[in-house]
Parts: sequence; structure tokens; C-alpha cells
Amino acid sequence: MSEHLFDLAIIGGGPAGVSAAINAKILNKSVIWFAADAVSKKVARAELIKNYPALPDITGEGLANALKRHAESMGIEQTNEVITGVYPTKGKFLVLAGAKDFEAKTVILCLGVEAQKPINGEERLLGRGVSYCATCDGFLYRGRKIAIYCTDKRFEGEIEFLCSVAEKAYVMPMYKNYEIKAKNAEIILKQPEAFEGEDRFTAVRFKGGHVEADGVFVLKTAISPATLVHGLKTEDGHIAVNRRMETNIAGLFAAGDCTGRPYQYIKAAGEGNVAAHSAIEYLDKN
Amino acid sequence: MSEHLFDLAIIGGGPAGVSAAINAKILNKSVIWFAADAVSKKVARAELIKNYPALPDITGEGLANALKRHAESMGIEQTNEVITGVYPTKGKFLVLAGAKDFEAKTVILCLGVEAQKPINGEERLLGRGVSYCATCDGFLYRGRKIAIYCTDKRFEGEIEFLCSVAEKAYVMPMYKNYEIKAKNAEIILKQPEAFEGEDRFTAVRFKGGHVEADGVFVLKTAISPATLVHGLKTEDGHIAVNRRMETNIAGLFAAGDCTGRPYQYIKAAGEGNVAAHSAIEYLDKN
Repeated sequence: MSEHLFDLAIIGGGPAGVSAAINAKILNKSVIWFAADAVSKKVARAELIKNYPALPDITGEGLANALKRHAESMGIEQTNEVITGVYPTKGKFLVLAGAKDFEAKTVILCLGVEAQKPINGEERLLGRGVSYCATCDGFLYRGRKIAIYCTDKRFEGEIEFLCSVAEKAYVMPMYKNYEIKAKNAEIILKQPEAFEGEDRFTAVRFKGGHVEADGVFVLKTAISPATLVHGLKTEDGHIAVNRRMETNIAGLFAAGDCTGRPYQYIKAAGEGNVAAHSAIEYLDKN
Repeated sequence: MSEHLFDLAIIGGGPAGVSAAINAKILNKSVIWFAADAVSKKVARAELIKNYPALPDITGEGLANALKRHAESMGIEQTNEVITGVYPTKGKFLVLAGAKDFEAKTVILCLGVEAQKPINGEERLLGRGVSYCATCDGFLYRGRKIAIYCTDKRFEGEIEFLCSVAEKAYVMPMYKNYEIKAKNAEIILKQPEAFEGEDRFTAVRFKGGHVEADGVFVLKTAISPATLVHGLKTEDGHIAVNRRMETNIAGLFAAGDCTGRPYQYIKAAGEGNVAAHSAIEYLDKN
């Protein structure tokens, strides 16, 4: 268990996360802010943003940098961790980033929307051969055969670790310029169609074939909200919230694209503000 | 009746109104945008704004000017009218600004919050001796005795007109440096406590006295939402909206402070965006 209990944990580095972090800081709350990217990648990719009021014709990169500078100017730091689970426990939350854990009284989810849908079978077999966390579950597969599905180069350290533990690894890197040196790694450059298995994962299926393994690791930055937080209510794939950005779990709030359309930077920033205010009101009451 | 039927009428010149107008313009809709002030007065009065993401430490005046320039850079014009009523009629809306009228398929209310509460009796006696519109109702009081309650110097033209029609006018200017030249005007520099009368307005009561009149004109920039739109559902003085910024009236949306706390510029800007998107979706469906 971590020693420090934060007032707020904010998960996500986009406009909603920045907005929530700024407000929590102004209102003197202790915050841990998890952002997988130093600058929101999705914002930075936008060519020209015409509807962020007061900043006409700003580039995506310009807005991403301005958001970053705003947070930095207030002394707000990001923690570069990928969150793998959020667990409500006795009036507080346990936030897991691989094998690390953090505790907070409230959590604001600013997860964005997954560009990619979960793989068929991924959610069904999670915890039964499908794992998001190399450091948590890697040793379960010592001397065994695993598959690794990976969407981001930053996880190559985890891939090397998993290969060092397993007897054999089928590695599916879904990004360019991969560098995987482990000798027992077999690279597969196909998009998996499904994770198969009845009670437990048994194989990855591709168009025209499959590989059998004892477990599969899914290493990606964006985990679907319902997978991240067990019991979280969603609607059409978005986190269900009310006007105060409250989810169905007390003390848990959400803001930005993950709460639904329109997917707009200014909508996300506005919701981040509301979520922070609601979280702080919740802290004051409890 | 006006000749032109607009896709959207946006009422209010603050961050919510600017945001809604920008998005309507980008999405090629015809818009009429009513803003009593060229730059939102309330924004401009803020000393330092620390939580408008991407614009750290901007002054209120700086933000107000940036919002104005954004709208101007897109060729969006404001119409400097004070709206006195919004009436849903057969799938469209009639928007009244004194004696002028406008028609729109959808309306977005970005009214802010009234700094001032309505005067006791004002809403109860509206249309029964209490009027918001000099040009609409002035002639009803030809040769009679009226009272005029006025919160803004810009209405002095209306005051002169009313004095020219009535036999006698008790004028209560609630602002500094008033210039009222009509000889039949008697200036009263007290805050009215109530408008009195059982079925109809009969008198204005002050601390320690009252004046009798046949009617009273209330000339102010901010009219409460429920008074502006008959049948509009409110909760605790705010317009009731869902997550799509829909009110209880089809085609009528609201955004910004008028929909409730927190009263925050970025929340207002975000809601203006959502309201515009919902209004445009409504237009596409109908």
C-alpha cells in the first residue's frame, strides 16, 4: 500500500485532465495526476482548431503546448504511469499502475475515447489468461508460452521482461519501428481477430490461422472504462455521468470524451472544471 | 413577423454564447446572435482568471477581448438588442426584442445569472400593469401615471419616450450619472421593495412610503429565464437541462451560468459548444 492518501487522483492528460488538475490545485487539494503522455497526443495531432473560444485558429500542437505550459506554470506535475485498474475500497480508491499502487479519496477519469475497440474476447477473458500488467502477472508464466499484444513502443521494456520470464513469446507489435531483441520472441505482424478460449484463454486467432499460448498480455495506453473500474456504469461505451459529472460510484467522477459526444476540446475542458468542483464538494462533505 | 427564419437564435454574449455562435458558424448554419453588450461585461470585470485552460493568468478584460476577437475573426456579428420574450410557436420560435421580432428554428439561452433578484410582485403582476417593453406597452398609458424602474443607462431613450406618452412618470434610475430631461419625470432614488396590487399593479412601495401609478415599466438587461420563456422548467432558479443541454421545450437549449453552478467561464464555453451541436442535430432531424 502507498503511504500517501491523495485528495484527488486525476487519470488522463488531455484538456479534461488539465482543467481538473488546475482547479484542484487552485483549491489547495493534494493531487496525483496520471498522464501517459507529457502532452495529450490526440490534441497535438489536430491540424487546426477553430472552436476553442478565445484561441482562434490554434494548431493542435499549439493548444497541447499551451495546456502543458498552463499546468507547469502552476507547479502541477504529471506522473507518467499507465493506470491498469481503479478499485473503490472503504470510502477511498486504490489506483493501480502495473505493480505500483496509489490511494486517493476521489478519482476523476479523463480517459478520452479509445481509438481502438477491445479485441474480441479480451474483456471476457480478462483475469483468465488475459492480463494488462506485465509486472503483476508476468511470473505466473515462468517457463510457459505467452502472446503479447502491444500498441505502443514505450512498453518494449515490459516486452523484454516478459520474454525473459516465458519460454516462448509471440509478440504482436502494433506500431512502427519496433525493436524487440529477445531471442525467444516470434514477431507476428497481423492484427488479432480474437482471443479464444472457453473458461480460459487458449489462443490468438488471426485471419487464416492462430497461435496457442498459456496467456496473453495486452499492453496499451487506453483501457476501456468498464474494464478499468469494475462496476462502473456505461452507456453506449461511454461513462454514464450526470450534470455534476458524478458516475454511479460515490467519489468517482468522469470528464471529457469518455463521457460521450460531442468529442470537443472545449467540452472536455468545461467538464474537467465541473468534475473538479464536484469532487471537492464531495471531499468537503465526507 | 420578421421575414427571415434563422436556424439558430443565440441569446447572450458571454463565453457560452460565443462558443455556441462559433460552432453554429463553422457548421454553416444561419445564426442571429443577441448580445446586450459588445463584450461580456461580467467576464471583463473579473480581475485575473487562472483556470481557463491554455490561457494562464489572463485578465477578465483580456479574455473578454479574446472572445470578441475570435467571433469577429470568423465574421460573426452580434445584434445589440435586449430580448424581452421567447415564444415557442408551431415548431419554431418567436423572439421579441421590444417591438421588434425575429424567428428561429432553435434557440440557445445563454443568459448568465441575474445579479439582481426580481422585485417582489414583479413576476406575479407581469402583464397586469408590470411591463418589460416601453415600445410594446407605452401607448396603453397615454395620459396616465406610470412608474419606471431602470437598471441601465442605455434605456434612457425608452424613458424619454414613456415620459412623452404618460401624464406623469416616477423614474427610479438604479445607475449613476442618469440624465433624464422630461419635465413630467419625478426622480426617486430609492430601491423599490415591492410592486403592489391584488389583480393589477397599483403602486410601488419603498421603505417608508409608496407612489401610486397605473403601470410600471421594468427596464433591465437580464430577465429571469422563467419570465422570458413561459413554461420553461427551472430548478432552484436555474434552467433545467440534461447532458445534451436540452430544456423541457423541444428546440430550446441552454448553456452557461443560467444552467447552474459552478459559475465558471470554461464550463460555460464547453456547454455552449454542446448546446450548438445538439441544436444542429435537432435541425438535421426536423
